[in-house]
Amino acid sequence: MSTGAGVMRWWGWGDARHQGGLPPAAVPLLQAEIGLGDGRRVAFDQVRVGPAALPAGVRDDLVRAVGADGVLDDRLSRIERAAGRSYPDLLRLRAGDAEQAPDAIVLPVDHAQVRAVLDVCARAGVAVVPFGGGTSVVGGVEPWRGAFSAVIALDLGRMDAVSSVDERSLVATVEPGIRAPALETALGDRGLTLGHYPQSYEYVSIGGCVATRSAGQSSVGYGRIEDQVLGLRCAAPAIDLVCAPHPATAAGPQVRELLVGSEGVFGVLTEVTLRVRHAPAEKRYEGFMFPSFSAGSEALRVLAQEGAAPDVTRLSDEEETRISLTMSGDGGLKGQVARRYLKARNVMGGALAIAGWEGEHEEVSARRERSAEILGRHGAVGLGRTAGNAWAKGRFHGPYLRDDLMDRGVLVDTLETATSWSNLFTLYRAVGDVLREHSAVVMCHISHVYPSGASLYFTYLARQDAQDPLGQWQRVKTAATDAIVARQGTITHHHGVGRDHAPWMRAEVGDGALAALGAVKAELDPVGIMNPGKLLGV
Amino acid sequence: MSTGAGVMRWWGWGDARHQGGLPPAAVPLLQAEIGLGDGRRVAFDQVRVGPAALPAGVRDDLVRAVGADGVLDDRLSRIERAAGRSYPDLLRLRAGDAEQAPDAIVLPVDHAQVRAVLDVCARAGVAVVPFGGGTSVVGGVEPWRGAFSAVIALDLGRMDAVSSVDERSLVATVEPGIRAPALETALGDRGLTLGHYPQSYEYVSIGGCVATRSAGQSSVGYGRIEDQVLGLRCAAPAIDLVCAPHPATAAGPQVRELLVGSEGVFGVLTEVTLRVRHAPAEKRYEGFMFPSFSAGSEALRVLAQEGAAPDVTRLSDEEETRISLTMSGDGGLKGQVARRYLKARNVMGGALAIAGWEGEHEEVSARRERSAEILGRHGAVGLGRTAGNAWAKGRFHGPYLRDDLMDRGVLVDTLETATSWSNLFTLYRAVGDVLREHSAVVMCHISHVYPSGASLYFTYLARQDAQDPLGQWQRVKTAATDAIVARQGTITHHHGVGRDHAPWMRAEVGDGALAALGAVKAELDPVGIMNPGKLLGV
Repeated sequence: MSTGAGVMRWWGWGDARHQGGLPPAAVPLLQAEIGLGDGRRVAFDQVRVGPAALPAGVRDDLVRAVGADGVLDDRLSRIERAAGRSYPDLLRLRAGDAEQAPDAIVLPVDHAQVRAVLDVCARAGVAVVPFGGGTSVVGGVEPWRGAFSAVIALDLGRMDAVSSVDERSLVATVEPGIRAPALETALGDRGLTLGHYPQSYEYVSIGGCVATRSAGQSSVGYGRIEDQVLGLRCAAPAIDLVCAPHPATAAGPQVRELLVGSEGVFGVLTEVTLRVRHAPAEKRYEGFMFPSFSAGSEALRVLAQEGAAPDVTRLSDEEETRISLTMSGDGGLKGQVARRYLKARNVMGGALAIAGWEGEHEEVSARRERSAEILGRHGAVGLGRTAGNAWAKGRFHGPYLRDDLMDRGVLVDTLETATSWSNLFTLYRAVGDVLREHSAVVMCHISHVYPSGASLYFTYLARQDAQDPLGQWQRVKTAATDAIVARQGTITHHHGVGRDHAPWMRAEVGDGALAALGAVKAELDPVGIMNPGKLLGV
Repeated sequence: MSTGAGVMRWWGWGDARHQGGLPPAAVPLLQAEIGLGDGRRVAFDQVRVGPAALPAGVRDDLVRAVGADGVLDDRLSRIERAAGRSYPDLLRLRAGDAEQAPDAIVLPVDHAQVRAVLDVCARAGVAVVPFGGGTSVVGGVEPWRGAFSAVIALDLGRMDAVSSVDERSLVATVEPGIRAPALETALGDRGLTLGHYPQSYEYVSIGGCVATRSAGQSSVGYGRIEDQVLGLRCAAPAIDLVCAPHPATAAGPQVRELLVGSEGVFGVLTEVTLRVRHAPAEKRYEGFMFPSFSAGSEALRVLAQEGAAPDVTRLSDEEETRISLTMSGDGGLKGQVARRYLKARNVMGGALAIAGWEGEHEEVSARRERSAEILGRHGAVGLGRTAGNAWAKGRFHGPYLRDDLMDRGVLVDTLETATSWSNLFTLYRAVGDVLREHSAVVMCHISHVYPSGASLYFTYLARQDAQDPLGQWQRVKTAATDAIVARQGTITHHHGVGRDHAPWMRAEVGDGALAALGAVKAELDPVGIMNPGKLLGV
């Protein structure tokens, strides 16, 4: 049990120790292509927070459930859990709007305390928003009270233990609030790893990864989180659920797969059993340059279908390649590498790929050789490890950069989807076209590959509309998601649904699946207190 | 659309062309260790079938839904769908008991006809049992009418088309009634394969595999059926469900995983989209002999955890090894091989493993070398391809052999489970001990390996109790399943739940999951007509 450390600074990503700032080469580029403005934020004492609306009797009951030190309702704690970390979340916070902050933060220490808290809230009609690392970029931890008069953030920060490790079966059971880095440290002490590295890695909780069906940057190799979850325990308002960690079973529908991705709308995950692996002796990351995004994409398809994909497999389109190389600057690592290798081969203007292999040295060599042969066959030019290591060094920097861009009055957001290889370029063009109608810069990369298809991860930048920045964002988001749905992409490959994607769930899964999920919701959470408005939109 | 060919002979496995008979060396062995008796079956005209109870008006409605040629209620058709192919099923049929035969067989040709049939049956209160290949060994297609006065078998034999193949994405969409061999033929014409080979391969339907969460003999390499299902369409009495075949998605709980393994209790799968692969240029099967089951099991654990497991990975315990070698006889292939290799190395009495690699020649060589190194490190002696090919030749013969044994008055059945590597031998001993209390011969093999654990597949033989063969079987089944549950095994690794395992579903998944599944059932099938008594026991 910890004291719930690791909450991010209230207005942005990361903690106060982080030194931000745009890379020098970025400023003229952004000025020329987007235009920079003023994105100042209000001071902390100007942030608006509504009065805590929790009835005194309910607060007393919660204190009885988790102890006095487990119920927080000071101003800072409430503001810190007032939102996730999406662009609109940060827009609101920076403007001083934390009106919808939770009325209290409740920190249980175990399953029994979670159960007690849910009992109190179901009886009193108080909405419950499970809160792990608070990293959601889709409104997944927004403390919306729905039809209820009060809402608590159920912060899992004190449930952060590694409960057990079965080294013989390579299985670890953990509490949901453990952060990904803490888990990697604990596993690393035993020579093990989970290998799950979403961009939110530094702050994300494992329970949050499971509840949102997360994928990490190495998931091509290690699997998405649902490929690693073997067992679960969940406290729903009406009943507990336990999914035993069998290696495989034919005993009917998998209720585990109902709880993975359930985003807290059915109940609270209180324990997760995960498949882990031996920690790799070597992590080898390399850059490759393709003549075009389409040539690179073809190489990635073959890699995935021949079982030869690197553990990290990423491919930027021409625009993302151009922007990254330019932003790294004349003195930048990528710039150097690119010029040295690419001018000689006259392929400037191509598509940059990052490939990473992890494992025993011999295995890494053999797998690298096989991948590189396929990459080369599709026109890739090797850029060596310098480019790969530069990517690895900056792999979690995106959210910090977003803060810096918002400081300069830039609208910056990402959205992601996935589809079959056959449909990939149709979807890529359709979404890109829509984004370009609203943005100055639109870039994309393939972040994950599968035998049947791949994900597309778009980043778009525009000068912020100073009058109506939220409306501006909502218009792009709506148009882009409509385009994704119209072209048979999934509404989210790894960000989750939350509140932002909930309006498209009917288009995504259809009436039949929504009816089934609604029935499960009614059974497990009959009062409807769990995470209102998320996922199912109810 | 076919005419629904491929129904098995009414009293046993396979069709009339199959020539059975125990291998010569088996008879003295069985006589000595079990004792042989008389397992004669009644003649076809002595089989008892109740009168077809379908009200004339309902029959007319069904004819309107699927055409006159789509409704069968002749005596042979009803007897052919009166049971699956479990040991108790065959006991009843051979004794002339087809009393519970379905009142009619209805053969829709497409999703719309399935929907029309469900509408008729929901309105009239007629139970519906989806029927694919009829190969269930757990009572999954038992035409139990539950609380209703009539029951139909919804035979999917005329929905057997390959709807589309996306060769670029390696994805095939098929109708549920297509049999596994027909699909392999259709895919093979395009250089593709599904690679799903349960022991029931010759008769099993793909819809049946999906509905029962099947695993095949090559599933260590190709994945269990749930690893290959990307999309689904399902007609439930209340509503249609469609799961889009995205390569991956974070859009909430996976309803697809509710339908995979749903055993027809929610609705009827009418379309399945599957991941397929390039057909292997080479299939290389080899035998290996370990000094003991425990040494072999340790080798398999390392193979699975190092990602080096062959596509087919099987390991018999000492008793199964002894019986197989003896039954193959002095002149038998396995016997020859065993004697030649094993006497020289003085390891007679060990544990026989079969390993199979499939793929491009170079890949097969490389993977084989890596596996063989690990096998050798754990004391395996290579038996070469002759032993492997002997296994491959007989890989679907088990059910025929069962018929032959039943002709001789032998109780023969199999049961299977899975657990973690840590728990494997505890479970193995506990189940084996219980089976030995009831049986003369108890043998076991590991049929599938995973990084976190493995399956155990038991075969047990006893002299049939001529007075009460069903009671005898039920006593063993109950004791063994109780032992599995007590020792944290899953009640089924790949046979499914059906009626036989339904009493243990609460122990398997717990009250919470049962409540969730019950809510889904009530939502999708409010009248409760779908496959009564199976899976959820309602």
